[in-house]
Amino acid sequence: MASERQSQPLAMTASETATKSSTVPSSIDRTLVEKLVRIAGNPPIDIQLWDGSKCVYEDGPARNTMEFKNRSAFYDVLKSREIGFGDRYSDGSIEVHGDLVEFLCEIYESQRKANQNQSFQLKLLGNLTRKKAKDNTLDGSKSNIHHHYDLGNEFYTLWLDREAMQYTCAYFARPDYSIEQAQAAKMEHVCRKLMLKPGQSVVEAGCGWGGLARYMARNYGVKVKSYNISHEQIVYAQERAQIEGLSDQVEYIEDDYRNISGEFDVFVSVGMLEHVGKQNYQVLGSVVDRCLSKDGMALVHSIGRNVPELMSAWIEKRIFPGAYPPTIREMMDIVEPCNFSVLDIENLRLHYAETLRHWLARYNENEDKVRSMFDEQFVRAWRLYLSGSIAAFLVGSLQLFQMVFTRGSNNDVPRTREHLYPMSDQI
Amino acid sequence: MASERQSQPLAMTASETATKSSTVPSSIDRTLVEKLVRIAGNPPIDIQLWDGSKCVYEDGPARNTMEFKNRSAFYDVLKSREIGFGDRYSDGSIEVHGDLVEFLCEIYESQRKANQNQSFQLKLLGNLTRKKAKDNTLDGSKSNIHHHYDLGNEFYTLWLDREAMQYTCAYFARPDYSIEQAQAAKMEHVCRKLMLKPGQSVVEAGCGWGGLARYMARNYGVKVKSYNISHEQIVYAQERAQIEGLSDQVEYIEDDYRNISGEFDVFVSVGMLEHVGKQNYQVLGSVVDRCLSKDGMALVHSIGRNVPELMSAWIEKRIFPGAYPPTIREMMDIVEPCNFSVLDIENLRLHYAETLRHWLARYNENEDKVRSMFDEQFVRAWRLYLSGSIAAFLVGSLQLFQMVFTRGSNNDVPRTREHLYPMSDQI
Repeated sequence: MASERQSQPLAMTASETATKSSTVPSSIDRTLVEKLVRIAGNPPIDIQLWDGSKCVYEDGPARNTMEFKNRSAFYDVLKSREIGFGDRYSDGSIEVHGDLVEFLCEIYESQRKANQNQSFQLKLLGNLTRKKAKDNTLDGSKSNIHHHYDLGNEFYTLWLDREAMQYTCAYFARPDYSIEQAQAAKMEHVCRKLMLKPGQSVVEAGCGWGGLARYMARNYGVKVKSYNISHEQIVYAQERAQIEGLSDQVEYIEDDYRNISGEFDVFVSVGMLEHVGKQNYQVLGSVVDRCLSKDGMALVHSIGRNVPELMSAWIEKRIFPGAYPPTIREMMDIVEPCNFSVLDIENLRLHYAETLRHWLARYNENEDKVRSMFDEQFVRAWRLYLSGSIAAFLVGSLQLFQMVFTRGSNNDVPRTREHLYPMSDQI
Repeated sequence: MASERQSQPLAMTASETATKSSTVPSSIDRTLVEKLVRIAGNPPIDIQLWDGSKCVYEDGPARNTMEFKNRSAFYDVLKSREIGFGDRYSDGSIEVHGDLVEFLCEIYESQRKANQNQSFQLKLLGNLTRKKAKDNTLDGSKSNIHHHYDLGNEFYTLWLDREAMQYTCAYFARPDYSIEQAQAAKMEHVCRKLMLKPGQSVVEAGCGWGGLARYMARNYGVKVKSYNISHEQIVYAQERAQIEGLSDQVEYIEDDYRNISGEFDVFVSVGMLEHVGKQNYQVLGSVVDRCLSKDGMALVHSIGRNVPELMSAWIEKRIFPGAYPPTIREMMDIVEPCNFSVLDIENLRLHYAETLRHWLARYNENEDKVRSMFDEQFVRAWRLYLSGSIAAFLVGSLQLFQMVFTRGSNNDVPRTREHLYPMSDQI
C-alpha cells in the first residue's frame, strides 16, 4: 500500500535537487516570489528561500515562515499551486516554521480575499482544467474509496476515537468532551434526529467501521443494514458486531449504496455524500425514495460549502479522489425530485475543526508508528491534510451539514426539536 | 375598500343565473363532470349538480359534497380551475357540504397525485400562461402589499392574536397553547435563534403591525428599526409603541426593504420573503450584506415549497398579488452570492396549519362583523383562503422555513441549539 503511494510522482530528480538547491536566487526568482505573494493575496507570512534569505511580510512581523528548501519546490508551487505546495511539503522540500494550522488559515484567508477579486472566467478556467479523478461510477467509486479507506484499520486506530472509530465530524455538546464522548454524542444526536424506536429497521449508506450501526442497535433496539464498499472496513465492522453480540441486529454488506434493496423505517448516511459526486445526488435521492417506508425518516450528514467550489486539487489528487463537498443548493438534488420535505438542516462547522484538532493531536503523538507503517512522506502528507482541514473549517471554506428529511406527505413528524436537548451527562 | 374588491368581476349576470340554474344537466354536462373528476385525480367527494342530481364518488361513501348551484359555475371551474372554483365559491354559486378544510385536503391530495402523472410540458404551459400580478418593483410591491395588508386594522384585529397581531406562523411549543401563547413563543424562538443581547441594534424587513419589534425591545433590550410599506400597519405599530413606552427603542419606517440603510447587529425578516419575488432574492441578500455588522446574525422566516410551484392562481389573483413561496434551493439565492453561511433551517409546516386553525375559528366567530365591514362575498372568499391554507400546509404543498445565517467568516456562532429549548412556561 505504502509503496503504491510513493510511486506517485512528486516530480524532482536527484540531479535537479543538487543543482537547484545550491543556486543563489536570481533577480527573476525574487520577482516571481513577489508575484506569488501578490497572487496569494499578500498573506501575513515570511518566505525563506533556499539560500537562507528571506522575503519578509511587509506589514509584519509575521508569526509563521514558509521555507523553500530548493528552487524547484518554489517553481512547483508557482506552477501548480495546491498540488505543488502539498507535494513539496510532503517530500520535505517545503517546511513551515511556526504553527502549521495557523499558517494554513492565513493562506486560506488571504487566498479567499484574493479570489473575491479574481474574475469569474479565471475561476471557471481553473475548475475546467482540473484533472479529474475516477468518476463515481460503481467501479470508479470502488477505486476512489479503496485509495483512502483501505489504508489499513491499524493506521486509523492510531488517531480516531477508541470506542466507535468514527471518521466523521463529532458533536461537542460540551466543549470539554473527549473525542470519544463527542463521537458518542454525534451518534446520539443523529439517533434523536431520526426519532428511532425499538424494532424499527434502518438502512445505512456508507458505514465506515460500523460504529453508528452498532450504537443504534445497542441503544435503540433497531435492526440495521449497513452498506459500504471498503473491504477492510466491512471486515472490521463484522468482527466488532460479533464481539459485541450484535450480529443478529446489524448486518454489514459490502456493496454500493445504489444496490440497496428492501424497505426501511429509517435511512441514514453519515459522511458518504462527500464521495457520491454531485452528478449522483438524484440517484441517491431515488434510492431513498425506493427504500423508505411511508412515514420513514432520513438523515444525510456531509461536509459542505457555502458556495460551489472544487475540493483542493491536492486533497483530491493525493487524499480523497472523487470527493466533492456540496452546497445546500446542490444537496437539494437529493430531495426535490422525489418531493421529500426537509425538516431540519444544522451546520456543525466548528465541531469538525474541533474533531480534527483531536485527531491531529493523536496523529502527532503516533507519528513514529505511522512512519514505520508508511514513510516520512506519508507522515507529512497526512499531517498537512489534517491541518489543512482544520484550517478550512476554521476559516469557513468548509461546512458540515446535517439534513433531516421525510416524505412530503408525512405528518408524523416532531413538532419541535426539544427532544434533541440537552445531551445526557452519561455520554 | 370593500367596494373596490366587489368591483372585481366574478363573472355571472343575473339573466345567466336565472336561465342556466333552471336548466337540467345535459348528457354533455354529465360527460364533462366525469372528465373534471378524472382530471382532478378522482377525489373522494360527491358532486351535486344544479338540478339536485348527484355524481357520486365511485369508491364511496364520500364525506364531503361539492354543489354547483348553476351550470355557469361548473363551466367556470372547468375553464379556469382554481380561479373558477375560488370565485364561484366566493359568490355562493358553489357550496361545500361537509367540512371545507377536509374537502380541500381531499382535492389537493388527489390533485397532487394527478399532477405527478401530468407531463412536465403541461405543467410548464400552465405556469407560462398564468396572468401576472404587478412585478415586485418598488411601486409594484407597494400596490401588491396595499391590496392585502391595508384592508383595515380592525378587520385583522377580529381574528389574529390579541397581544401582538402576528400575521405569520406561530410556534406551538406545546400543543395546548392559545394563539396568543404560540405567537409569543414564535417571537421568543426567533429572538433565541438570533442570540439577541441588550444594547444590540436590529433591523427588521417587513414588520406587519410591529409586534416582533416591540417584543424584542421589551424583552431583550435591543434597539429596532422596522421597515414596512403598508401604511395602515405602520400607523398602528407606531401608536402601540407609544402606548407601550417603547418609542425610543423602536422606530417604524414606512419604506421598502431595499432602502434600508445603516449597520446593524441583527437582520430579521418574518413573513416578508413570500412577497419579495424570487427575482429579488439576490437583492435582498445584498441588502443584508450591506447592513449586517461583521459578526451579525440574520434570520429569514417564510412560507416555502418542497418543489417549485406557482401560488394558487386564485390566491394570487384575489388574495396575495405578487406572492411566491420559495423552495430551499431558491432561498439560497439570498445567501450564496454573498458567501453567507447557513447555520440552521427549521421547517415549521404543521405549526402553520395549527395557527390557521386558530385564525379560522376566530374568523368564523366574527363572520357577522366581517360581513358588516365588507359583504358576503368577501366573507366567503376569506373563509376559503384560510381553509385552503390550512389544507395546503396539512397535505404538505406548503412549508414554513426559518433560516438562520451569518457571514461565512463569523466564528462567534452558537455551537449547539440547546439555548432554544425548552420554551419557558411563562409564555
